[in-house]
Formats: sequence, structure tokens, C-alpha cells
Amino acid sequence: MLELLIKNASAELTTCYYYTILRANLIGLEGEGLKEIAETARIEDRNHFEALMPRIYELGGKLPDSMVDFHNISACPPANLPKDPADAKGILQVLVGAERCAVRGYTHLCNLTAGKDHRTYDLCLAILNEEIEHESWFSEFLGEGPSGHFMRRGETSPFVGKFLR
Amino acid sequence: MLELLIKNASAELTTCYYYTILRANLIGLEGEGLKEIAETARIEDRNHFEALMPRIYELGGKLPDSMVDFHNISACPPANLPKDPADAKGILQVLVGAERCAVRGYTHLCNLTAGKDHRTYDLCLAILNEEIEHESWFSEFLGEGPSGHFMRRGETSPFVGKFLR
Amino acid sequence: MLELLIKNASAELTTCYYYTILRANLIGLEGEGLKEIAETARIEDRNHFEALMPRIYELGGKLPDSMVDFHNISACPPANLPKDPADAKGILQVLVGAERCAVRGYTHLCNLTAGKDHRTYDLCLAILNEEIEHESWFSEFLGEGPSGHFMRRGETSPFVGKFLR
Amino acid sequence: MLELLIKNASAELTTCYYYTILRANLIGLEGEGLKEIAETARIEDRNHFEALMPRIYELGGKLPDSMVDFHNISACPPANLPKDPADAKGILQVLVGAERCAVRGYTHLCNLTAGKDHRTYDLCLAILNEEIEHESWFSEFLGEGPSGHFMRRGETSPFVGKFLR
Amino acid sequence: MLELLIKNASAELTTCYYYTILRANLIGLEGEGLKEIAETARIEDRNHFEALMPRIYELGGKLPDSMVDFHNISACPPANLPKDPADAKGILQVLVGAERCAVRGYTHLCNLTAGKDHRTYDLCLAILNEEIEHESWFSEFLGEGPSGHFMRRGETSPFVGKFLR
Amino acid sequence: MLELLIKNASAELTTCYYYTILRANLIGLEGEGLKEIAETARIEDRNHFEALMPRIYELGGKLPDSMVDFHNISACPPANLPKDPADAKGILQVLVGAERCAVRGYTHLCNLTAGKDHRTYDLCLAILNEEIEHESWFSEFLGEGPSGHFMRRGETSPFVGKFLR
Amino acid sequence: MLELLIKNASAELTTCYYYTILRANLIGLEGEGLKEIAETARIEDRNHFEALMPRIYELGGKLPDSMVDFHNISACPPANLPKDPADAKGILQVLVGAERCAVRGYTHLCNLTAGKDHRTYDLCLAILNEEIEHESWFSEFLGEGPSGHFMRRGETSPFVGKFLR
Amino acid sequence: MLELLIKNASAELTTCYYYTILRANLIGLEGEGLKEIAETARIEDRNHFEALMPRIYELGGKLPDSMVDFHNISACPPANLPKDPADAKGILQVLVGAERCAVRGYTHLCNLTAGKDHRTYDLCLAILNEEIEHESWFSEFLGEGPSGHFMRRGETSPFVGKFLR
Amino acid sequence: MLELLIKNASAELTTCYYYTILRANLIGLEGEGLKEIAETARIEDRNHFEALMPRIYELGGKLPDSMVDFHNISACPPANLPKDPADAKGILQVLVGAERCAVRGYTHLCNLTAGKDHRTYDLCLAILNEEIEHESWFSEFLGEGPSGHFMRRGETSPFVGKFLR
Amino acid sequence: MLELLIKNASAELTTCYYYTILRANLIGLEGEGLKEIAETARIEDRNHFEALMPRIYELGGKLPDSMVDFHNISACPPANLPKDPADAKGILQVLVGAERCAVRGYTHLCNLTAGKDHRTYDLCLAILNEEIEHESWFSEFLGEGPSGHFMRRGETSPFVGKFLR
Amino acid sequence: MLELLIKNASAELTTCYYYTILRANLIGLEGEGLKEIAETARIEDRNHFEALMPRIYELGGKLPDSMVDFHNISACPPANLPKDPADAKGILQVLVGAERCAVRGYTHLCNLTAGKDHRTYDLCLAILNEEIEHESWFSEFLGEGPSGHFMRRGETSPFVGKFLR
Amino acid sequence: MLELLIKNASAELTTCYYYTILRANLIGLEGEGLKEIAETARIEDRNHFEALMPRIYELGGKLPDSMVDFHNISACPPANLPKDPADAKGILQVLVGAERCAVRGYTHLCNLTAGKDHRTYDLCLAILNEEIEHESWFSEFLGEGPSGHFMRRGETSPFVGKFLR
Repeated sequence: MLELLIKNASAELTTCYYYTILRANLIGLEGEGLKEIAETARIEDRNHFEALMPRIYELGGKLPDSMVDFHNISACPPANLPKDPADAKGILQVLVGAERCAVRGYTHLCNLTAGKDHRTYDLCLAILNEEIEHESWFSEFLGEGPSGHFMRRGETSPFVGKFLR
Repeated sequence: MLELLIKNASAELTTCYYYTILRANLIGLEGEGLKEIAETARIEDRNHFEALMPRIYELGGKLPDSMVDFHNISACPPANLPKDPADAKGILQVLVGAERCAVRGYTHLCNLTAGKDHRTYDLCLAILNEEIEHESWFSEFLGEGPSGHFMRRGETSPFVGKFLR
Repeated sequence: MLELLIKNASAELTTCYYYTILRANLIGLEGEGLKEIAETARIEDRNHFEALMPRIYELGGKLPDSMVDFHNISACPPANLPKDPADAKGILQVLVGAERCAVRGYTHLCNLTAGKDHRTYDLCLAILNEEIEHESWFSEFLGEGPSGHFMRRGETSPFVGKFLR
Repeated sequence: MLELLIKNASAELTTCYYYTILRANLIGLEGEGLKEIAETARIEDRNHFEALMPRIYELGGKLPDSMVDFHNISACPPANLPKDPADAKGILQVLVGAERCAVRGYTHLCNLTAGKDHRTYDLCLAILNEEIEHESWFSEFLGEGPSGHFMRRGETSPFVGKFLR
Repeated sequence: MLELLIKNASAELTTCYYYTILRANLIGLEGEGLKEIAETARIEDRNHFEALMPRIYELGGKLPDSMVDFHNISACPPANLPKDPADAKGILQVLVGAERCAVRGYTHLCNLTAGKDHRTYDLCLAILNEEIEHESWFSEFLGEGPSGHFMRRGETSPFVGKFLR
Repeated sequence: MLELLIKNASAELTTCYYYTILRANLIGLEGEGLKEIAETARIEDRNHFEALMPRIYELGGKLPDSMVDFHNISACPPANLPKDPADAKGILQVLVGAERCAVRGYTHLCNLTAGKDHRTYDLCLAILNEEIEHESWFSEFLGEGPSGHFMRRGETSPFVGKFLR
Repeated sequence: MLELLIKNASAELTTCYYYTILRANLIGLEGEGLKEIAETARIEDRNHFEALMPRIYELGGKLPDSMVDFHNISACPPANLPKDPADAKGILQVLVGAERCAVRGYTHLCNLTAGKDHRTYDLCLAILNEEIEHESWFSEFLGEGPSGHFMRRGETSPFVGKFLR
Repeated sequence: MLELLIKNASAELTTCYYYTILRANLIGLEGEGLKEIAETARIEDRNHFEALMPRIYELGGKLPDSMVDFHNISACPPANLPKDPADAKGILQVLVGAERCAVRGYTHLCNLTAGKDHRTYDLCLAILNEEIEHESWFSEFLGEGPSGHFMRRGETSPFVGKFLR
Repeated sequence: MLELLIKNASAELTTCYYYTILRANLIGLEGEGLKEIAETARIEDRNHFEALMPRIYELGGKLPDSMVDFHNISACPPANLPKDPADAKGILQVLVGAERCAVRGYTHLCNLTAGKDHRTYDLCLAILNEEIEHESWFSEFLGEGPSGHFMRRGETSPFVGKFLR
Repeated sequence: MLELLIKNASAELTTCYYYTILRANLIGLEGEGLKEIAETARIEDRNHFEALMPRIYELGGKLPDSMVDFHNISACPPANLPKDPADAKGILQVLVGAERCAVRGYTHLCNLTAGKDHRTYDLCLAILNEEIEHESWFSEFLGEGPSGHFMRRGETSPFVGKFLR
Repeated sequence: MLELLIKNASAELTTCYYYTILRANLIGLEGEGLKEIAETARIEDRNHFEALMPRIYELGGKLPDSMVDFHNISACPPANLPKDPADAKGILQVLVGAERCAVRGYTHLCNLTAGKDHRTYDLCLAILNEEIEHESWFSEFLGEGPSGHFMRRGETSPFVGKFLR
Repeated sequence: MLELLIKNASAELTTCYYYTILRANLIGLEGEGLKEIAETARIEDRNHFEALMPRIYELGGKLPDSMVDFHNISACPPANLPKDPADAKGILQVLVGAERCAVRGYTHLCNLTAGKDHRTYDLCLAILNEEIEHESWFSEFLGEGPSGHFMRRGETSPFVGKFLR
């Protein structure tokens, strides 16, 4: 389970980097609406990385010394930008794909830890809640059906925040 | 006049419910812009209901014991969703229609009470101001002409707020 | 009309004084609930006095030089405490009486100024709204029927406040 | 399970309406103490409705188009006011009954989802915590035994709040 | 009435410009006291322009495309600085004149709209209240008699603010 | 000592009233500077009255039932306005006189209670500190010598405040 | 004197514990009003313990190593709950007794230190002020006469707070 | 250089006016996204005018007495609205043109003052930073390439703000 | 399970007392760093006691009437100070021991309640999370290995806080 | 007594200067802990100077015109830095010596004024409380025994603050 | 350049002392207006000293061990009070002279460092901006011409502040 | 120059990662003091990356698509942890080395852009100021001489912050 935690921490960090580039490519009237949502997701994913890190050390694990090694063990494959940087739909599909991989990963971790490792379960459940909401923001933009969600207002990471104070 | 107040209170509450469903159906890139405005209008309509209620009791009226009865005396007919849940234009026309019915209702109440029932006049005028602004938000989206309005920033119900503290 | 304004300003100030004494006599388990409401009403009546004063000077009037003279022209007769200082019901009837006198006074002033002296009308309407709410707080305690009101939360004088900034 | 969620969402909304009326009927010295607690419970129940709604849509469900239909599928029967609107004890028993129905409903949902649907479990557990506290506020008033609880201070919905940001 | 609104909006904007220059000319020990008041009046006049603009569009009017045209239809003649830029008394008389023209203009608009165009009435009444207070600040400095007013503390535009949120 | 406390409470309340009138008469360029100081002193004197009142009741005393009786037992004679309402120097001398009477009164009370009635001593010392500062504000304006004081910024009553919470 | 300080610190801590239990037993409509006051007194007594502790160490004293030893040297005998946990009157008499013992203790300490140990005097005077106010809250509930006090609003320990920062 | 400062101050003020009209013409679903950005740019341009004004006076310059004269010396030609008020693209090109003129103007002023007039350089550099960001907001909407910028959040004028306090 | 809850509540309270003494003994350059951490742990343990208490009463339990009895049933043995009060290492080992006992206790309670008593589980999980963090703070000081944790910033009890509002 | 006040004011100001230099010399891992405490003591000593100054003028005294003269009458001799700038222990002994001189000075002033000059007594007592706390911070670092104190959190000068508002 | 920095730091500190005395001598109606400005200038000059000090140490310089030595190397000669302590004009000329010396000093330092020592340049430019504003406040009072400046509102040191956090 | 900006952005991001690991290895009593400083430096370096990114895009540059490529072009070589994770001195030397490389890099960029590319200069100067402060924090810990700096209090990035709003 410890290995899975590290792989997911890696995925969160690399996702951050790709969000940074994606965000710069969201231009034109269509892309504007996505920009703020992508930024919120980026910040919350950075929070997930920072919340996972202490639990990894508590359980006796450690991060690789090299950032490149860390990047290469990511639980989810890195996002690939569509060729056309102004293709908002294409970018959306990349984002939805990344979020769905994360949802699967944390659901698996919740299944492994429920009723056994209470603190890890509580942490993964908190991250899972936020990943499900990210996924629903982007899938709504693709018109895949209503979810009734709103963008964050005020503070980010309403679920994971308690692990960051 | 008391009966009119109760009918308008009913219209506000039922409008809230339909806004809740409409909001969930505002999906895709086009609908996103409408979502935040619809949410603000929903919250302000809920405030109108809460501000009308005490005045009704002060004047000796009361709300029906059954929520279904209350629903059925609404001053404005309940909004009907267009068939296609992603038809942003159609949803806009429903919203504009509901707001225009409200503007007519409170203008009538203002005419009845001006110079006579000072407190009821002040309350209806406050609600009227907010309903006119709701109408202008949605009619602007339909491209019916400029109004120069902005969405609320900070607190909602700048006019009705004084009746809620 | 100017004379009426001064008489009402006098009534507000003398009411403040009697509220101060009444408040000290609200003792025992029954009186506790009334205490906070009486304090809010006292503070808002003090605000009414402070908001009326500048309008009196704007219209060319002035306050009497002697506090005793000012006290003696009050629009409403001063409240008389019941003999038994722990008689919560009796105190309530005194309070309701004072508030009803104020409601009548400001309704009269609104009728006189509506559509003519717009600023005085706006001021008297603001005070009227607060006096009606005071009256409903106390009459509810007497069990005279529901009014659906709540005590102020947060800032006092939601209506008159704009004349005090 | 999805059907159960919708039924409980319906119960929350209709409870809100009845709290609104009950609140107006809490008059006299005895009722005052209950008023603030009933208002807090009303606001938190409204929050429960708003937190359940997006989860229902995420799971592929939807709310009925008609508010009347929605009202009629409520998981708990609507509260009936006692004949005498000033009968604080009677109102208390109605409130305790409504809260106990809610506690049973969410406990059942927690049992169904624990270790399986992690997000729904987290949501129902959050609501359950608040419903148990509502129940204890009212049962304490009835003198059924100590619970050591306090009324909310500051923000409402300390448990469900994370689902509303 | 619409034309009058536009003319007054023009007067507000040009007044702002002249206040900016007047403010720079308030020097020496005497002028210092006027500076803060002139600045508050300038900011509130800018607010009046911003509050009138949307109502003009709502009623189907529009602002002239050229700022020069707009300047030339002002309801009040532009203020003329006294020759001696350090003549505080002279500047005061200019300011009092400008404010009195504004008070007359909005009183006229209130008379035209009272009981008929409720929203425009409410807006003009709000502006009127602030203009009367501006006038009293400056006339007090001229020693024309007491008004009991204070400078704004905290937020500006306590009356018009509700149209700007 | 109890009688002295009541007499000083009376002096504080009547001083408030006269400050209210004095404030309205501070007009013209010279008077403006005094206005804000007089207002702060007025508010702190009102606070002194409100802080003395509970101590009087704790010691078994009570306020007279009639506001006129209360006015007539004041420890300091009521202030007399100079004939010319724009005579800032004359008004200053009245204010300095009133503050010096208060300083003498509370110094006497401190002497009586030091080392004996600890709580009354603490209260009178707190009021004394504020009265000495009031006196220094006004005597500085009269050019009687430097005191190095500033006007209050932020909250009023830095000494007495602890008795008002 | 040092020994007295330690004994009073012990009394404060044990009082806290009994307040915790008493609070849980304040049930039913009558007890509700007492709950918030008992909670404030409990928190301020805890503050007294925390403010006495550093002074004891500064003077060279120390707390006993065992909590049981510390408990047994309390300056005031521990409060005994009345048999009937819903007997609000009986609980009140226990509370008033405990507060009166504290008032006597700190008055004695003030007498010992006045003009000699300035810092200890200042600390005991601060605590004394708060204990007198606690006593007056509870004795008012028993209807023993007016005191004109209000419950704390905003921050607790307005007197002792300066020793806790 | 002083003349250039005045011409740029004129351009800022007239730009404000045209933004006000442009903003009202941004209607329909496409225009909504531009509205908030145009409003922020308008407010920051107003700030530029207010920050330039004192530096002009410090250097011995002055603003023209007539607003029309001031308008006619603008460094940049006034913006011309496209015929079709709902042509978002056309409006964007007008806005981009105005911002580019401003960027050129302040770059020129920076070149003139660097290493010589340190304060004017610091002011022009601050304005330049904000104008470059305005330009990038609008050019991104036109799809001219990524810039990675975000709209202001929180306070406006992060660079010029230090000249306005 | 109820008995276990009471025993842990006892351990939390007695731990608080010993932290108070330990804190006073953390002197010298080495001890300073530990002081703030020990204080945060003390406050959070006090919060645990306050959060456990209502759940004990909800489940029908009660606290012992005597503080000494309560002290003697503690789930963990009371901490023993090392002989040398300046032995920072020794104190650390005492603290780590106390926290590890708490972690074992709440892990056991989580195992007992997971999937059965949802509310008690949620409470014990929240406390467990905070106890694990306390343990990691102290064990890091002993150099037992990295944990990546930070001290609390801002509010304490990020996990248990929701049970205290 | 006045001369003593001036001498102590001088000591406070010169102490500030030496703290500024000492602070810069607190380097290396050992010195870091002292830095924040020295800074807090420096700021509070500056506050003491600012609070003493107005009382000196009130009593008819004045500060010397020359800063050098003022420096030379200090009540305590200026602190001498140890030769080795990184000798934290040596710096500590200098600081403790300076604080003990101040404690003696203000104790003497309290003895002189107690029961006679109430305001000067209150001021010196406030400063004394803060100087005793400074002394205890530094002596604790030297390991001279526990004092149970904490560093200031939040605002500085909790005792003297009331003289600075 | 380093020597120049130290000399200017000395000038800032000694200016502070003289401002403290000057401030106490600003009495009478005329002096009041200057008081607040002199206080703001005093606080910002103190900030300049505190911002220069770390840069001096970074560049390898140090402050003299003796405050008297430090005082004697000041870049600007100490201000001399006019004989008549109530001569506001005379005091103003002293203040303007001191500020102009500072403006020359920092302009020289900017010339020396521009394009070479980037950090020192940035610091001196920040101080220069504030000194120019101080100069303009005082020269405006002397009626030497308009500058359009306002007194600081809110936080002081808008330019230097970034070096103090 | 653009290439240099990208290389420095890369260095900032990789520094962040290594700070994350270093932070986890700062254990034991010695490391604790460094932890908070390392965390502040980490957050400010992340801010530098986020502030550089938009300027790179404005100048027509772009970040590499692959995080690994980006990592490999870093302007400074990645930090190497000392073998012994508890060797605080060794870690300090690594940190000082990294900060000195950054100081050299941004000084070079400032030299290249001064007086030419005003916006890039302003950005690099802001970052340079923060990097110099980071360097001084760590070199002070190594005892290399005084710098007089303090850790950030309140908000981070006082210089770069204006580029992030």
C-alpha cells in the first residue's frame, strides 16, 4: 500500500506541471471558462501531494532523491497535450482522463485500507472526494450530463485541508 | 393585498425549486456562464420568501399548513424546462419569463401600497429592485440590448438585506 | 412637521433612560430572555435620536438648551415601571405600549411627508420599520400571536444605519 | 440506495418548510428559547438537501420535475403541528420525532455504504452527525436526560460544510 | 425624465473632474480641512454617475459616444475656480453652488417619479440624500448655521451603495 | 461613597446631552477641528455612565425613577453655552471646565477607595485616566502648554472598556 | 501569600471540572438559560488558573506533581451537585456559593498585597473583578435583586486577559 | 517629459469613459466573459490617472481647467466602437489597440527617465506593468497566443497601488 | 466501549495537568523549542476531553462526580517527570510514551466501532489523527526519523474541531 | 518623582538602540531562539518610552532638546556587548542585567506613587508587569529556574497598550 | 556608498527623536492639523532606519557601538526648534528643511547605485519616494503650491514596507 | 535572455522538490529551527516559478512539454543531500550554495535588462531581493556574520507578490 501512496503522490506532482502548461494554452473566448477550473484543480492536486508526503514518511517510506526518478513512477501516465493548443474540447478530454485515473487509484486505496489503516483511509477518502469533484467539473463541460456541482468559492481543498494545517 | 403577498411568497419558493433543477441542467461550455447568475437569482429569491413571511404574519396572515397547497397558489406559473437539457437559449427564455412575471407582480404591489402602507411598500420596492436586476441579467444574455449591469459581488440581496438582519 | 420631529426625538431619548432602568429590573429566570431584546431596542432608539438630530438642524430647528425642557416635550408619555420589579409580564406591557406610541407617531410623519419631503420621509420610514419590529418582539412574548421575527443578529439598526455613517 | 438518497433529500426539503411555519408559532416566554435552535436546525436541513443533490446527479439520478411529486416521496412523514400553536412541549415532540426519523434513515444509508461507496458514506455520515445533534438539542429540552451539547456558535453545518464549498 | 437622468449623470462626471483640480488647489493650513471632505464628495459623485448609468440603459437610453458631447449636456454649469488658488472661502462657495444645483435636480426627479416609477424614484432619493449631506458639509464650513453632520467614516455612499453591488 | 458614584453618573449623562448640542454648534473652519474630539469625549462619557451603573446596583444603590430627578443631582453643574454659537474659544473653556470638575470628582473617589474597595477603585481609576486625557485634549487647543497626547484612534475607552464587555 | 495563591489556583481548576458536569445536567426549558452563563464562568475560571500559575513560579513556588494532591488543597470545598439533576434552583445555589468563596479569597489576597506586591495585587484584582461578575450573574437568576450586568459578549476574561497574552 | 505625463493622464481618463460605454455593449453569451476584464482594466486606468496627477503637480505642471481641453490632448486617439454593439471580436480589437498605445507611451517614458528621474521612472514602470497585463488579457481572448496570465483576484492595481495610499 | 471512552477522556484530562507542569520545566536554550509544541498538544488534548464528553452522555454514560475518582480510571498511566527538570531528552521520552499510549487506545476504539457505531468511529478517528501527529512531533525531536510534519499554524484541532462547534 | 520618570524614559530609549545592535549579533543556531524574544522586548521598551512621554508633559516636565543630553541621564547604565559577538550566553547576561535594573526602577516608582498619584501609579505598574515578564524570558534561557511564561503572541504590550491608544 | 548608508540611517534615527519633541509642541488650533502628519512622518522615518540597518550589515558594515557616536555622524544636521513653541509656521520650515536634506541624500544614493547595486538602489528609491511625499505634505501647508497629495490612510510606508516584512 | 529566464524557472521548480525532501530530513533539536525557514524559502521559490512563467510566455517563449526535459535545463545544479540525514550543518551548506547560485543568476539578468527591458528588470529585481534574503537567513545560521534579518512574518513574497495577483 505504501508503494501505491508514493505512485499517487508522483502522479499528483506531475499533473501539476502539466496543468501549468495546459493553463497557458487555454486561450480564446472558449478556453477562458476552463482556465479558472484548471487552476483550482492544479492547486488542489498540489495539496494532495503535500498531504500524502507526511503519511508516506510516517509509514517509513521516502521519496526518491531524484525528481526524474520520482516523475517516472507516476501512477497515471503523463497527460499529452493535443496538437492544436486552442482545441478546448481536446484539452478537456485529456483533463477528464487524468482525473478518472486518479479516481480509480484512490478508490482502490480506500478499498485496501477501510477498517484497517484508519488514518490512511481518512486521507485517501478526502483526496477521493476532491478528485471526483474535479472529474465532474470537466465532464460537465463536455456535456456528458448534469452533476449539479459548483466551482470552489473561497478556500480550496475543503476535504484535504484538515491534513495541511 | 395580503393575499397577493402570500401568492408572491409562494412564487418565490417554487421558483427556488425550479432554479435548483435548472442549475443542474446548465452544462457544457455555453451553460457555464449562466450557472453562477442562476445561483445568485435562486438565493435572492429564497431571501424574498424569507423577507415576505414575517410581514404576512404581522398583517395577520399565515402560510398554508401544507406545502402542496402553498405550491398551488403561486402568483406565477411554475417554469417548464425545455425538452433538451443542454439548450441554454431555451432555458434563458424560461428564466426571463419567470423574472418578468415577478417584476409585474411587485410593481402592482408597489402601486397598491405607495403612500399608504409604508412598510409593505418599502419591502416590495426592495424586492422589485432585485427582480428588475435579475431580469436584466438574463435578457442581456439573450442579446436583447445593453443594461450595463454586473453580477452581484460580495453579499447578495443588497436591497432586501435590511429586512433579513 | 419640524415640531413633530423634535417631539419624537425627545421620546426616543427618554425611552432610552427608562430602558436602562427597566433592564436592571429584569431579573430571575423569566426576565433573562427579555434582557437582550430590551438592550437592542434601547440601542436602536438611541440611534433614532442621533439620526433625527441632524435632520432637525438641516430644517432650521434646534434642540432645547436644557435637558429638562427637552424631556418634557416628549411625543409619548414616559413609561411607568410596575410596582413589583420582578413582574416580567407587567414590564412587557409597558414596553409594548411605548413601542405602539412610536409606531403611530412615525406612521403619521410618513403620511405627512410622502411624495413631498423625500429625505424626511426616507428617514421616518427607516425608523418606522425598526419600531414595528420592536413592537413585534415584545407582543410575541405576550403571546398575542406569531410574527415570525427574529432578534437582530450582527449589526443593529439595519434600516436607520445609512443615516448614521 | 440512490432512491433512498432522493427520498431523504425530499424529507429534508419538506422539513424546512414545516420548520418555517413552526418557527412562526413559537411565541410566548417559553417558546423563545426554542426559536433559535429550530432556526439552526432548519438551516442545516436545507444544507443537507443542497449537499445530497449533487451526489444524486453524480450517481445518475435526478430530482422530479414537479415540486409536488418531490414532496410526496419524502422518507419521513411531514410534521403535524399540534392544535394549540403556543404548546411548546407539543411542538418539541413533533421536532424530536422528525429528527429521530432522520437519524434512522442516515444510519441505514451508512450501513449500506460503509466500505463500499466511500463518498456516499462520507456524506451520509456527515449528515448523520448533524441530525444526532439536532435530536439531542430537542430531547434535552424535553428533559429526557443530559447530553452536554451546545447550540452551534459561529458557522452552521460543521460536518456537512465541506460538501458545500 | 430619461433625458433628465442623462443630464444629471453628465453633471456628476464633470463635477468629478473639477473636484480633482479643486482638491489640488486646497493648500495652506486653512485648505487642509476641506480636502478630505472634497475627496469624499468627489468619490460619491463618481458613484452617482456609476449608479445612474445602468438605469439609463434599462430605460432604453444611452450615453453619447463622445465624452465631449456628454460633457456639454450637463444639468449644472461647470464649476469655475476662483482666480486665487489659495482662496479657501471662494472655493467653498463654488462647491456649495454645485451641490445646491444637484439638490434641486434630484428633488425635481423625485417629484416626477414618486408613486410612478418606483425604481427610478428609489435611485434618485438615494442620490438626493447624499447630495443634501454634501451641501451641509460645505455650508457649515461657511458658517451658515449648524447642521450636526459628520464626515463619512468607513464606507462612502451609504445610500447609493445598494445600487452598486 | 455610593452617593458620590450616583452623582458622578448623573454628571456623565447630562454632559452627554450638552455635548450633543455643543457639537452641532461647532461650525466654520475653526470649529471643525474640535468636532471630532468633542464627539469622542461624548461617547466615552456615555461609556462612563454605563460602567458606573452596574457598580451602583452591586453596592445596593439605584438610579432615580425620573430622568429629571436624576439630572438634578449631577456632581458638576451643567455646561452653559456661550451666547455666540461660533465662538470656538468660548466653547473650549466650557469643555475644559467640565472635564476638570470630573477629574476632581474621580480623584476624590480614588482617594476614598484605594486599598479598601478594590473594584470601585479600579473602576474610578479607569474613568479618571480617560477624563485626564479629555482635559488635556481641550487645554492643548487653548494653547496652555504641550501634553503630547493624541486623539483616540480605533476603539474608544481604552481604560473603561474592560468594564463594558 | 504564596501558599494562598496555590490554594486558589487549585480551587479554580477543580471548579472547572464541576462546572463541566453541572453544565451537562442543565436540561429542560429552565436550565437552558443557565447553560451559556455556566460555560462562560467555567472558561474564565480556567483562565484564572492559567494566569496564577506563572506568578506562582515567578515567586519561587511550584504546583504539586500529583493532580490528586493538587485537588486536595483547594481553597474552597468542591461543589456538591443536588440530588435531582434537573433542579435548576439548587444548582444555582451551588454556583453562587462557589463564587462567593472565590470573592472572599481574592479580596483577602488584595488586602494582603495592596501597595506592597504590585504585580500580585494587579493579578488578584483582575481575577476579583471577574469573580464578582460571576457571582452577580447567578444571584440575579435567583432573583436576589438587580445588578445590571450583562453576559460577556465577544472575548472572555476582559480583566485577566492581559496576563494571558 | 512633463507634457508627456499630462498627455498620458488624459488618455487614461478618456479611456475610462469609453470603457464605461463598451462595457454596457458587451452583451450576449460571448460578451459576458469580457465584461469583468474590461471593468478591471477600467478601474486600473482610473487609478493610473489618479497616480499621475500628484506627480504632475510635484513637477510644477497642472491639469487644464477645462475637461474638454484635457480630453483633446490625449496621448492616444479615443477608441471607436464597432457599428454592431454585439460584435465581441471587434470590441476586443479596439481594446487591444488602446492598450498597445499605452504600452508604447509608458515604455517611452521609462526610457526617458531611467537612471535620471527615479520617482517618475518608478511610477511609469508600475503603470507599464499593469498596461502590459491588460494587453495580454485581451490579446489572449483574440487567440493570438498564450500568455499564462490570470485576471486580477482581490485588490486591483498591484503595481500602482503603492502610489495611491 | 462506553467504558473505554470514559477512560480515554480521563487520560486526556490528566495529561493536560501534567503538560502544564512539564511546560513550566522546559527551560534553557534546548527546552524552548519544545515549549510551543507541548502547549499545542496540551490544548488539543483538552479539546479531546471536551469532544468525548457529549458522546459519553449521548450513549447514556456519565462522568464520575469526584475529580479524584475520574483521575484514577485513566486509560494511560500518569506521566512521571524525570528528576532533573532541565533534562529535555528525558521529558521528550515521557511525552512520546504518553502519545503512543493514546494512539493505541484510539486505534482500538476505531477497530471496535468501524462500520458499526458510525458517529463514535468518526470521533475516535478524528482524535486518532491528532494523536498520531503529536507523536510524530516529539519522536522527530528525538531524532527517530523524518515524518515531514509541521507544527500547527492558525487554529488547533483541525480534525476534532468539527465536534466542538 | 518627575525626574525619575524622565530618567527611566531615557533608559527605555537607549535600551532600544542597544537591542537593535544586539539583535544583529544573535547569529548561529543558538542565537536564533533569542532573536524573536529580543525583538519583542525592544518593541515593548519603545512603547514604554512613548507611554511615559505624555505623562511627563502632563506633569509639567519636558524632554531635553538634545538627544545626547537625553541619552546621558539614563536611569540604567548602557548595556555593553560581550567581545565575542556569537557568545549567546554572554549576551543573555547583559539582557537580564538591563531588565533587572528596570524592574527595580519601576518598583521604586510604584512605591512612591501608590495611593497618591493614581494615574502615574497605573502607568508604572503597567510597565513593571511587562519588565518582569522580559526578565523572566531571559532568565529562563539561562536555566535559572522555571517561570511558566510564554512569548507574546499577537499584539505586544498587553499592559501598557491602554496608554497608547 | 556604505558610509553614506550609515550616515543616512543616523539621520533617520535622530530625526525621529526631534519629531517626538516637535509633536509635543504642536499645540493650539493651528498646530493640530500638523500633528497627525508629523506623527506619520516620524513613524516612516523610523521604518527607514529599520530597513537600512539589515542592508548595512549585508554589505559588511555595522552600526557604532555607542548611540552618541551614531548620533554625531548624521547625514543631515539635527533640527532646531524655533524659540516660540507655538510658532506653527516656524516649525513647518524646520520640517521642510529636514525633509529636503533627506531627498537630496537619497537622490545621490540612487544616482550612485542605479544599474549597479540593484538591491541598494531599490531600497533607496523606496525611501526616496516616501521622503518626497513628506516634503510635499509640509510644503503644501506653507502654501508653496499644490501637490495633490493626501495623507497616508491605512498602513504607513507603502514603498518601504516590502523591506520590513 | 529568454533562455536564461527559462533556465532559472527550471532551477526554481527543481529547488522546490529538493526543499521538500530536505525539510523532511531536518529532524532532532538542531534541525527544528531550520525547518520553518526552509519552508518559507520553498514557498517563495515556488512563487518565483509562477511569476517567471507568464513573462516567458509574454516574450514568446514556452516551457518544455516534458517535465524531465524541463528539469534537465536548470540554471543551477540540483542540490545533493549529505549522507547523514541529521547533519544540520551539512544541509545548511547545501542550502546556502543553492541560494548563492540563484543570487548570481538574477544579478546577471538584472545587469542585462536594466534600462532596457523594464518589466523583466522589475521582475528579476523582485526575485533577487528575495533570494538575497534567503541566502542571509542560511548564512547567519552558519555563523558567517550578522545580517540583521528576520524571518518573514505574515505574508510571503513581499517583493514578488505584486506579480502574482
